[in-house]
Amino acid sequence: MTAFSPETQVAIARVRDEVAALHAELVRSGLVVWTGGNVSGRVPGADLFVIKPSGVSYDDLDASSMILCTLDGEVVPNTPGSDRSPSSDTAAHAYVYREMPEVGGVVHTHSTYATAWAARAEAIPCVLTAMADEFGGEIPVGPFAIIGDDSIGRGIVDTLRGHRSRAVLMRNHGPFTIGRDARDAVKAAVMLEDVARTVHIARQLGDPLPIEPAAIDALFDRYQNVYGQPTSAGAAR
Amino acid sequence: MTAFSPETQVAIARVRDEVAALHAELVRSGLVVWTGGNVSGRVPGADLFVIKPSGVSYDDLDASSMILCTLDGEVVPNTPGSDRSPSSDTAAHAYVYREMPEVGGVVHTHSTYATAWAARAEAIPCVLTAMADEFGGEIPVGPFAIIGDDSIGRGIVDTLRGHRSRAVLMRNHGPFTIGRDARDAVKAAVMLEDVARTVHIARQLGDPLPIEPAAIDALFDRYQNVYGQPTSAGAAR
Amino acid sequence: MTAFSPETQVAIARVRDEVAALHAELVRSGLVVWTGGNVSGRVPGADLFVIKPSGVSYDDLDASSMILCTLDGEVVPNTPGSDRSPSSDTAAHAYVYREMPEVGGVVHTHSTYATAWAARAEAIPCVLTAMADEFGGEIPVGPFAIIGDDSIGRGIVDTLRGHRSRAVLMRNHGPFTIGRDARDAVKAAVMLEDVARTVHIARQLGDPLPIEPAAIDALFDRYQNVYGQPTSAGAAR
Amino acid sequence: MTAFSPETQVAIARVRDEVAALHAELVRSGLVVWTGGNVSGRVPGADLFVIKPSGVSYDDLDASSMILCTLDGEVVPNTPGSDRSPSSDTAAHAYVYREMPEVGGVVHTHSTYATAWAARAEAIPCVLTAMADEFGGEIPVGPFAIIGDDSIGRGIVDTLRGHRSRAVLMRNHGPFTIGRDARDAVKAAVMLEDVARTVHIARQLGDPLPIEPAAIDALFDRYQNVYGQPTSAGAAR
Repeated sequence: MTAFSPETQVAIARVRDEVAALHAELVRSGLVVWTGGNVSGRVPGADLFVIKPSGVSYDDLDASSMILCTLDGEVVPNTPGSDRSPSSDTAAHAYVYREMPEVGGVVHTHSTYATAWAARAEAIPCVLTAMADEFGGEIPVGPFAIIGDDSIGRGIVDTLRGHRSRAVLMRNHGPFTIGRDARDAVKAAVMLEDVARTVHIARQLGDPLPIEPAAIDALFDRYQNVYGQPTSAGAAR
Repeated sequence: MTAFSPETQVAIARVRDEVAALHAELVRSGLVVWTGGNVSGRVPGADLFVIKPSGVSYDDLDASSMILCTLDGEVVPNTPGSDRSPSSDTAAHAYVYREMPEVGGVVHTHSTYATAWAARAEAIPCVLTAMADEFGGEIPVGPFAIIGDDSIGRGIVDTLRGHRSRAVLMRNHGPFTIGRDARDAVKAAVMLEDVARTVHIARQLGDPLPIEPAAIDALFDRYQNVYGQPTSAGAAR
Repeated sequence: MTAFSPETQVAIARVRDEVAALHAELVRSGLVVWTGGNVSGRVPGADLFVIKPSGVSYDDLDASSMILCTLDGEVVPNTPGSDRSPSSDTAAHAYVYREMPEVGGVVHTHSTYATAWAARAEAIPCVLTAMADEFGGEIPVGPFAIIGDDSIGRGIVDTLRGHRSRAVLMRNHGPFTIGRDARDAVKAAVMLEDVARTVHIARQLGDPLPIEPAAIDALFDRYQNVYGQPTSAGAAR
Repeated sequence: MTAFSPETQVAIARVRDEVAALHAELVRSGLVVWTGGNVSGRVPGADLFVIKPSGVSYDDLDASSMILCTLDGEVVPNTPGSDRSPSSDTAAHAYVYREMPEVGGVVHTHSTYATAWAARAEAIPCVLTAMADEFGGEIPVGPFAIIGDDSIGRGIVDTLRGHRSRAVLMRNHGPFTIGRDARDAVKAAVMLEDVARTVHIARQLGDPLPIEPAAIDALFDRYQNVYGQPTSAGAAR
């Protein structure tokens, strides 16, 4: 095993636990089927992240089966789980961590309603106060990109850099979400599917009313700064 | 801790238990995701109510984490949970309790179908006998209101005062329901989402048939006075 | 307690158990919310049936809380549960048992998709082989009927007598299903909601293809006579 | 009992376990209601397969209640479960095993969205990368076929032979899926319903964008050869 400092070893263990547990949250929230979907988390203070193995049942995931990778997307040899292949989306996660140092977690799913908007390459309009709170406006669409090189990661970063939204709808594919940490990215994935579904259903019988941009700004600002418990580090989204 | 009479202390403890347990009912009924949604209950015989803390996971809610507030929406200091921030909708709940003394419980969710009608600012027409029973007619729409002052509470009260419906669809936001007590308000939230979904689905393939106003009146009157067990205090809705 | 023969006492106990357990099946299959919906079962060899109490939570139902009624819909005094009011649909169940001696079980729900068809007073066309198997053709619509007299029971019987379907969609209200026994009526309620949902969804994007009447007849005949285990009494639907 | 070699006896026992467990997966994934749906698995190295009994509750299925059949669809006498009737779809499964020696598992359901496409006899267009990965293109429609002879089996084989898709939508009936083994066929059934639902929902509000055929080919090729763990036999789908 590569020699990590004691602090890094502790951080790796914590992120392994967190990322393993968050995969169960994807199942509980109905965002994934079979072995689809993946969560990763950056190891604070190190150029490392932890991600799910490829094609393994959600019932069989625990902290020791998570895979430790460098920011180039390479598996760190001789670490727990390193005998397995990491998620086939590992290169996309790695690209995001390299390019967006403020991101501590990445989630990818094919959740039904978000993916349906992605199949039409249609942004989700901000017609709910919960969307204004959480995403600060519409959910943008990213490009069509084939797996196998950096094109998915680049599409995510090009779309979300400088954007309020923590979620992008990759065309004909599905959503990626980012967050301060893995839990925050999972929250974004859960909230995204919820608003994607509600706005879809609202649109089925007519046109939702728009929300004034100034009201969207006020809601986003309040939610990022006031909501949740004051003891949290930053906004407790 | 403020000195409450023994009777009030017992009542507070009972409402804490009830409100904590009812949050689990919101999850079980699929009305909420992540930390969204909130239930409150008035403490009988006191100018107090109990509400959920802000941004805390449903798995971590118990009686002692519920927060005791005055009818001005201020947290009662030195009581269990008082070191945390109450739900960001606390001001709206407090406004309802101040203005509607007959209300003993308030619930807010972003449940999918009710929120979809709210996004279009469209009242749900009374085309089901279950709606006539439970709500006595259509479900009305309330105004667009920004969080942060009394405008949400005022919108709820202005819409529901003198109305048969215990539910209001706040525009671009979601439903609030009221009840004799917290459990009755949760029942209203559950029934609202059920009828919002059924009427939505009926409308997708054509126009539901209307119910004659006289039949709606007869159904509502019977249900409020006859349904349920005679030993209950009032109608066992 | 009224003096019943030992055989009848055994039969009552068995039907109480069965009806109590079948209410849990309604919950598990997602056909009911809160205290809505009800199952009843005829006591073989006696002019009696067992039904759920009114307005009681599904979590609190067991064999001893079920209520024993005569075929006039009157509660049999001094029997377990007789201190409570029976389901407010008891008169409708009683009417069916009086008029259709071959019926051993009745179920009523407000299941979403079946109720949506009922709100439009639109029969569900037989465009699935599973519908042909189970119902032998379309699911018919019954009249609008107000609770409180025999009009619901009469509407059910007038629609289903001589009809292959074990399910009727009562206008603006919801489905009633009948069966050889309570379990068979619950099966009909489950299958009804399943086909109501599938045909609804098929219709959302175009017109389902019809099935030839001769094919419907062949499927219905086979399923009633061949499907299931030969040791069952009659067709093991 | 017919005299099987020790190796075959071991293989039979393993397939009984696997097929029994996979029926629970159908329930968990929401693909079946009541006693509908069935899974079968070929016994490696023998002209035998294992299938579910007809009309038995999913709660009551275990390895010993599974039924062993020859490739003619006849129950092997004097084996566990042989006193019961096998699934009424047994002839169709047997036909597939006789005609497609590469197939090791067959699954049939009436899953909602796949069956809705089948009711319109409309192929599901390949507008999601997950469809390209898993099915290599559109999901084809099979003919209308009545149960009782070889016509369902022949319809499945005529449609899927030489086709990339492991799923066929039998007209007015529902999907059949095939796989390397029973688990692979269940995975196909789960993924089919997922894409059937997502494409349906995408289509409700407009037209999904097509994916270029060359991109579909590239995705299918990669997924069949690279995805999953290298230790698996073949592609770990």
